[in-house]
Amino acid sequence: MDLKKKMLRDDALEGKTIVVTGGGSGLGKSITKYFLELGANVAITSRNLEKLQTVSKELESETSGKCLPVQCDVRNYEEVEAMRDQVIKEFGSVDILLNNAAGNFISPTERLSANAFDTIIDIVLKGSKNCTLAFGKYWIENKQENKNILNIVTTYAWTGSAYVVPSATAKAGVLAMTRSLAVEWAKYGIRSNAIAPGPFPTKGAWDRLLPGDLKEKFDLAKKVPLKRVGDHQELANLAAYLVSDFSAYVNGEVITIDGGEWLKGAGQFNLLEEVPDQMWDMLESMIKAKKNK
Amino acid sequence: MDLKKKMLRDDALEGKTIVVTGGGSGLGKSITKYFLELGANVAITSRNLEKLQTVSKELESETSGKCLPVQCDVRNYEEVEAMRDQVIKEFGSVDILLNNAAGNFISPTERLSANAFDTIIDIVLKGSKNCTLAFGKYWIENKQENKNILNIVTTYAWTGSAYVVPSATAKAGVLAMTRSLAVEWAKYGIRSNAIAPGPFPTKGAWDRLLPGDLKEKFDLAKKVPLKRVGDHQELANLAAYLVSDFSAYVNGEVITIDGGEWLKGAGQFNLLEEVPDQMWDMLESMIKAKKNK
Amino acid sequence: MDLKKKMLRDDALEGKTIVVTGGGSGLGKSITKYFLELGANVAITSRNLEKLQTVSKELESETSGKCLPVQCDVRNYEEVEAMRDQVIKEFGSVDILLNNAAGNFISPTERLSANAFDTIIDIVLKGSKNCTLAFGKYWIENKQENKNILNIVTTYAWTGSAYVVPSATAKAGVLAMTRSLAVEWAKYGIRSNAIAPGPFPTKGAWDRLLPGDLKEKFDLAKKVPLKRVGDHQELANLAAYLVSDFSAYVNGEVITIDGGEWLKGAGQFNLLEEVPDQMWDMLESMIKAKKNK
Amino acid sequence: MDLKKKMLRDDALEGKTIVVTGGGSGLGKSITKYFLELGANVAITSRNLEKLQTVSKELESETSGKCLPVQCDVRNYEEVEAMRDQVIKEFGSVDILLNNAAGNFISPTERLSANAFDTIIDIVLKGSKNCTLAFGKYWIENKQENKNILNIVTTYAWTGSAYVVPSATAKAGVLAMTRSLAVEWAKYGIRSNAIAPGPFPTKGAWDRLLPGDLKEKFDLAKKVPLKRVGDHQELANLAAYLVSDFSAYVNGEVITIDGGEWLKGAGQFNLLEEVPDQMWDMLESMIKAKKNK
Repeated sequence: MDLKKKMLRDDALEGKTIVVTGGGSGLGKSITKYFLELGANVAITSRNLEKLQTVSKELESETSGKCLPVQCDVRNYEEVEAMRDQVIKEFGSVDILLNNAAGNFISPTERLSANAFDTIIDIVLKGSKNCTLAFGKYWIENKQENKNILNIVTTYAWTGSAYVVPSATAKAGVLAMTRSLAVEWAKYGIRSNAIAPGPFPTKGAWDRLLPGDLKEKFDLAKKVPLKRVGDHQELANLAAYLVSDFSAYVNGEVITIDGGEWLKGAGQFNLLEEVPDQMWDMLESMIKAKKNK
Repeated sequence: MDLKKKMLRDDALEGKTIVVTGGGSGLGKSITKYFLELGANVAITSRNLEKLQTVSKELESETSGKCLPVQCDVRNYEEVEAMRDQVIKEFGSVDILLNNAAGNFISPTERLSANAFDTIIDIVLKGSKNCTLAFGKYWIENKQENKNILNIVTTYAWTGSAYVVPSATAKAGVLAMTRSLAVEWAKYGIRSNAIAPGPFPTKGAWDRLLPGDLKEKFDLAKKVPLKRVGDHQELANLAAYLVSDFSAYVNGEVITIDGGEWLKGAGQFNLLEEVPDQMWDMLESMIKAKKNK
Repeated sequence: MDLKKKMLRDDALEGKTIVVTGGGSGLGKSITKYFLELGANVAITSRNLEKLQTVSKELESETSGKCLPVQCDVRNYEEVEAMRDQVIKEFGSVDILLNNAAGNFISPTERLSANAFDTIIDIVLKGSKNCTLAFGKYWIENKQENKNILNIVTTYAWTGSAYVVPSATAKAGVLAMTRSLAVEWAKYGIRSNAIAPGPFPTKGAWDRLLPGDLKEKFDLAKKVPLKRVGDHQELANLAAYLVSDFSAYVNGEVITIDGGEWLKGAGQFNLLEEVPDQMWDMLESMIKAKKNK
Repeated sequence: MDLKKKMLRDDALEGKTIVVTGGGSGLGKSITKYFLELGANVAITSRNLEKLQTVSKELESETSGKCLPVQCDVRNYEEVEAMRDQVIKEFGSVDILLNNAAGNFISPTERLSANAFDTIIDIVLKGSKNCTLAFGKYWIENKQENKNILNIVTTYAWTGSAYVVPSATAKAGVLAMTRSLAVEWAKYGIRSNAIAPGPFPTKGAWDRLLPGDLKEKFDLAKKVPLKRVGDHQELANLAAYLVSDFSAYVNGEVITIDGGEWLKGAGQFNLLEEVPDQMWDMLESMIKAKKNK
């Protein structure tokens, strides 16, 4: 099985303009590359313009698509509006917003200051809200239809997770915004969906998140039923499906792509995987007893 | 903290008649005892009449309540109707149905025969359905209101679980029935709710479920954030609340009581609990880097 | 937007053999057609061989794919094993099982006999279980990997629904089986996922489900934020994605494709959609009051 | 059935000190009153000290409990720490934190300014986070155990809701924080749970939320299967259970108390409630057709 194989017809996103926040690195960059390959114009944003410009050139040369770097701190609503206007000036319109910019700390929660916690809420939740509001207001005011918002959340947006509580909190907010606006803004021709990715390692981000020994000690692949982490192209395939018109009837949905990771932890008896076959053989005769009270 | 302390006022269930399927052993017996203490009449059912009679006498002597043993295989609808009629003949009416009878195998699914799988569906899902239908039809036909169905499911009714797949499948069906009828039968004055208990060990059942070494090797308490299994009185307190009029506005709800067990498995970074304090100290300066793409 | 547009590259399912239960009509037929177009061999099953044979010829002539009609009552495990063996004899192997066969009654639950309720559980839940077990046992015993089970459930498998309680109950069981085996059988190279479709009308089925006036009176499209029902090709696109290798990291997931229908009903204030614009104008000055207790 | 009946033994909260943010009005006040009746010391907070003082005197005279009014804007972490220190100075310790302070706008989302949206996030999400962090840090640092955090969220924290998107977003964040810390802080003896109340009208708040005609036009009781809104004592009973030691094994749970409201909207065929009995009679013979493809 070739995990890097590309799913959609080559023209699947032709004529679409897409904004990918945090599109200059990690998963955002991988997704951006696939969008460009499928014929879309893509604007990528982050606070670091220089880095965006380098990535933009790299992706353009690899794909022959058009990639626009735009500096923007998503925490600041005015900057978001300016970014929006710049993209529209360059490409004429925007069809799809991908809220991907994020931040995270791994830390026991009691060690966090109130300010550190706020920083993650501001980047993840207020940032996604700012972009959503800026593009939504524009589309609605200008009566533009067939628009599409895709938000990147996490599997722990729903279950919560220790040690990444600011991120869990903020991503859960984004998930609720996704579901709320999927209903409210459908009448304006705007869909909203989300992806909850499991472990898709990105060199930079994971080194920061799990420094030193931690990364080796807590190998996330072990927790995945499929016994591997995800390939960026697998996430890009799903993202391309969700921003394309092929998913036009998917609205308000959060699609988890994690190899079954969260379910493996959640199910009460999943830990019995460690029971060896011979033990099951031995037990087989014994466990046929049944309880019918 | 005294986990065996009893919650409700002593007369909380006075005048109520309750049927507890599978009430002769395990959790069903503990709950039945508390219902009797709170003033209810309780009918307990199972296939084994002799055992029921012994338990019934034991509970009556301990509580001075009235406990009626009724033989009934819940898989057989005619037996269920006969059981219902016997209870009504004895107590005049029935107010509350507690579907607690269950069965389970722990086994790799591919080792199960289609028949073995069916047995669990028949006991758990069809059994609960038979009792629900028999009492529901009676209440509706006789225009009796303020009735209440409580179903015991499991935390893996929603998440699923390996190695107990027939039970997961059947309990999920019971959960959907709970939610469906909470809406449909509310107009007749019938509420429906469920409890999803985590690890509440019962000697007999657990020995059968996890024979020999397995029980020691896979200590379920370790998976619980609170680091302990539940006390039967804690479950009885919750069950008493849900069958009492004090919960009259709770309808269609599944209340999980598991010390946080399923969430601990589900959250992606919860495994970092094993990181020692010194390591967090060491990391604290490093992990303040943040990602704002 | 052309809802009938096809998503995947033309060879996306080349070399795959797929069994679609209930593949001779309705959504099963539409999905089967798209699988054939994408290069798969497809076996379709139902109790009515004659009808299957007609459909099979029709689809083969339209697609130039290979479609094998196999008579099978999924309630009967022996018939399911015989069906499996026939497909393997014809095509050499099976890669994908799509559990699509279903049954449903629309009725107040108290009007159903215990037997009528059982019939739906037997077709939907035991039928899906029988097929899953028959193919799973075969794949595991023969150490065949990269296999894939896709189950068609409903949005009310999770929330429940009045008036279709047997179906809600049975589909919830299928959902739990999906999630359980996604974890348990991943080690054998078998993935499990589900689709929860909203309103995708099929002439025959909907006429039976909502006879006469009922269909006009309760127009399900009105409940959908996107104000339309789904097109069969939209469901086929999603099913093709989920059975293809492009979704190899999606495991244990239930993808809802309903235009946001269930969310629209669920959200507490969604009914305010009926407030006209002028009223919002009027209220705008008043509602800025905020509550910060 | 007397909905105002009180559930717990009179001494159920004796010796406990509880902080109720937003405790000076609405549901917070009703819950505070019941806590006082059960023997707890309660500190109530809001921005309006004068109002708090009046309420405090009123509740003390009605219950003979001790009620401490403390001014605090929960958006400001320093004020929260000062509030915490004042309560501890007065009562010696704090056992339970009830995050109840909230804010809400009812408005089409595209009419909201980015700032207005932020205000709700700040009050609801950052406010709850500030209190949680201030008390959590104190308990952990001082190695105090058997502590308890209860958060008031909403049913649309999970499903989202149009027209109250800032609140949906912020409450979803609180829900994820609840579940995350239920796992992470359990090792310190701190539990976390939440309540998701449906319609429990409060004169002031509902008049502000649904001004003028809106309240009559959109009668939330009609959406509830039980055909009524909730009584404050019903919510107070549940809150008292969850903060008491009787629920010591409930951790990480969100209990919905809404009469089944959200489920009624969510289930696909629930709208068939409007079908009259005679029509079901007529249909009964026709709808027995079943589909077994």
